[in-house]
Amino acid sequence: MVKHRQPVIALLTDFGAQDAYVGIMKGVIAAINPQSSIIDICHSIPPQDIFQGAYLLYTAYKYFPKDTIHVAVVDPGVGSERDIVCVHTKDYLFLAPDNGILGFILPHERPQTIVRITNKKYFLPSPSTTFHGRDIFAPVAAHLSLGVKLQQLGIETDHLNTLCLPMPRKKRKGGIEGEVIAIDRFGNLITNITKDYLKGLKCPQRNIGILIGKRKITGLGKSYAEANIGMPLALFGSSGFLEVSINQGNAGKYFKVEKGAKVAIDGTLL
Amino acid sequence: MVKHRQPVIALLTDFGAQDAYVGIMKGVIAAINPQSSIIDICHSIPPQDIFQGAYLLYTAYKYFPKDTIHVAVVDPGVGSERDIVCVHTKDYLFLAPDNGILGFILPHERPQTIVRITNKKYFLPSPSTTFHGRDIFAPVAAHLSLGVKLQQLGIETDHLNTLCLPMPRKKRKGGIEGEVIAIDRFGNLITNITKDYLKGLKCPQRNIGILIGKRKITGLGKSYAEANIGMPLALFGSSGFLEVSINQGNAGKYFKVEKGAKVAIDGTLL
Amino acid sequence: MVKHRQPVIALLTDFGAQDAYVGIMKGVIAAINPQSSIIDICHSIPPQDIFQGAYLLYTAYKYFPKDTIHVAVVDPGVGSERDIVCVHTKDYLFLAPDNGILGFILPHERPQTIVRITNKKYFLPSPSTTFHGRDIFAPVAAHLSLGVKLQQLGIETDHLNTLCLPMPRKKRKGGIEGEVIAIDRFGNLITNITKDYLKGLKCPQRNIGILIGKRKITGLGKSYAEANIGMPLALFGSSGFLEVSINQGNAGKYFKVEKGAKVAIDGTLL
Repeated sequence: MVKHRQPVIALLTDFGAQDAYVGIMKGVIAAINPQSSIIDICHSIPPQDIFQGAYLLYTAYKYFPKDTIHVAVVDPGVGSERDIVCVHTKDYLFLAPDNGILGFILPHERPQTIVRITNKKYFLPSPSTTFHGRDIFAPVAAHLSLGVKLQQLGIETDHLNTLCLPMPRKKRKGGIEGEVIAIDRFGNLITNITKDYLKGLKCPQRNIGILIGKRKITGLGKSYAEANIGMPLALFGSSGFLEVSINQGNAGKYFKVEKGAKVAIDGTLL
Repeated sequence: MVKHRQPVIALLTDFGAQDAYVGIMKGVIAAINPQSSIIDICHSIPPQDIFQGAYLLYTAYKYFPKDTIHVAVVDPGVGSERDIVCVHTKDYLFLAPDNGILGFILPHERPQTIVRITNKKYFLPSPSTTFHGRDIFAPVAAHLSLGVKLQQLGIETDHLNTLCLPMPRKKRKGGIEGEVIAIDRFGNLITNITKDYLKGLKCPQRNIGILIGKRKITGLGKSYAEANIGMPLALFGSSGFLEVSINQGNAGKYFKVEKGAKVAIDGTLL
Repeated sequence: MVKHRQPVIALLTDFGAQDAYVGIMKGVIAAINPQSSIIDICHSIPPQDIFQGAYLLYTAYKYFPKDTIHVAVVDPGVGSERDIVCVHTKDYLFLAPDNGILGFILPHERPQTIVRITNKKYFLPSPSTTFHGRDIFAPVAAHLSLGVKLQQLGIETDHLNTLCLPMPRKKRKGGIEGEVIAIDRFGNLITNITKDYLKGLKCPQRNIGILIGKRKITGLGKSYAEANIGMPLALFGSSGFLEVSINQGNAGKYFKVEKGAKVAIDGTLL
């Protein structure tokens, strides 16, 4: 038997680790496609937190092999009238509820085909109304990995629901105000400010003032270790967003801020 | 080299994620069978909680491919006189300590052969008395996946220890009293009440009263989203048990109940 | 296509489960080597805790197949001048920052070749300064698994940074004093005392006194179940270190001790 190279199935859910939900999805996939190759992106999305799921999917998806089937199940509307969609872009397939979870990706990946998943032939028999990860997402992904064509799965559409992404805004006096959109395990405060927003500033990077909480950090670093241990710094992180960090510490705890906290680039200093 | 289709090895343990115990088991398996295909069901069973392990294994096992080797290691008696057994049913092999962890499955899967594992040829050399996951379960599972026959592993027996499963009971006046047997990541309160228990009720489903704590829910829903956000509902969940849930909320926190809490179907309303 | 047996890539990091960092590493590996075989050792090392990473790697590495590529990323110095090294021993490759994370292993595995990783040809393009797991460790491991030779990756060296391992010491009157070096999920208190340290004692094992906190345990057990449920015992655990445990309980909570707590073998009793 010649083994053909199959697409990877990448899973992102809010199913967590304490239950068997993720394992069950993998069992379903393996039962349909014994040669499947499954990679977990993340299963610790806070329950129903579509925004966090969208953000993490964005940071990860493009590092996967061409043709990867990205399955994203953060699905508070499971069993209701919401659609499940499969979106084909130049390099990837995305299988997800149509609830905005692809919102971070869509500005970067142009959909070539969008299909609403309706063909029950590719579902488990008698799908439940509460666990579509098992009954729809897993079997559809397995069939896709076996070569089933997108068009066999349902009805083409040209509409996708979007996600309201908070965008940084220019302040009077030339500064920029963004916000913390994610806090990672290390306590890094990841903002929505990309390098593009700093292009207009004439101030050299070493003089930029970053205001968070009631504190100010001056200058942009390159690596965590540039700051003394336990001291804060700001840098552009691995996903391209401005981060506020503590070298070998936890910036979330240090600054006592949560997601949504304002972060300003101080224009008065420029 | 022709690649034959091998059985999946599915792992369920109480080893958690903070240590290397699960990774070590996988290393042992890969060292014996480099082509092995391993799927994690769950490793977050609370330490020594045989009941929770048995419940999660039950919700998951039948979604795995035929011939899957289900390895369940929740094993407070490790190193003592307790037996390790391998149970062959029509579709699966179950490798587990003989402590009741198969108790939820046995009413549904008739054992065809039961073997007490005694053949040290298939263990790691000099097995420890504290980590049989590494020294016995992993190597035996790997050898099974390579085609070693059940009968080579030890001595046939016809006895298995059972688990005391709490069963719902009929109340005077025609109601049913069950209890919460599991609470999942989303806070769904999963009871031991299956649809069979409601067959005797003449009351239409929309009028059924579900009593939990000091509160009552009226009627059975089909999907979480039928309730308003933050509001409770009851439905039959994806494993066939009555669940009490909060749409996009956490019923465990809302009702302030724990495993073992009573849930009554109110017969006085019928 | 003939499938050759490839080395396993085993991953140990402090990236945790709440983010996508581990999934991203796997995506990078799969994009370079679609046939790669990846096993997680552990990703729950406390942030920047090199000692804990070194300990867990030690307990796990030798159970993996020959030629496994062990990738250990606990890397507080990421992006700074610290080196990344690949160490070839008789049976394994270790890819890690040169910060002591191999410190527990080196007394047991003699390095045959050590290479400082410098060849950017095997990195992702434009590597970040904050996520070398993605940009250097993952792609280098993938290329190694495809057969790239160690010498192609950089410059040979004969120096490795070490880790200060706390060693037990002999006490006056013939006793031994060690310390708790790890506490696992079950609350087992794992010390740095190996069997070798007890060889000098003339006292029979059943009379040995183990002092921890203000309490004393008498005698060494073999399995947890030898003690009554909820009662303490001491035994040599599965990695060869003296452990203090509670049968079906949590010794960390029972004794209210943390890593670094002193554990004495009482010589006055001998």
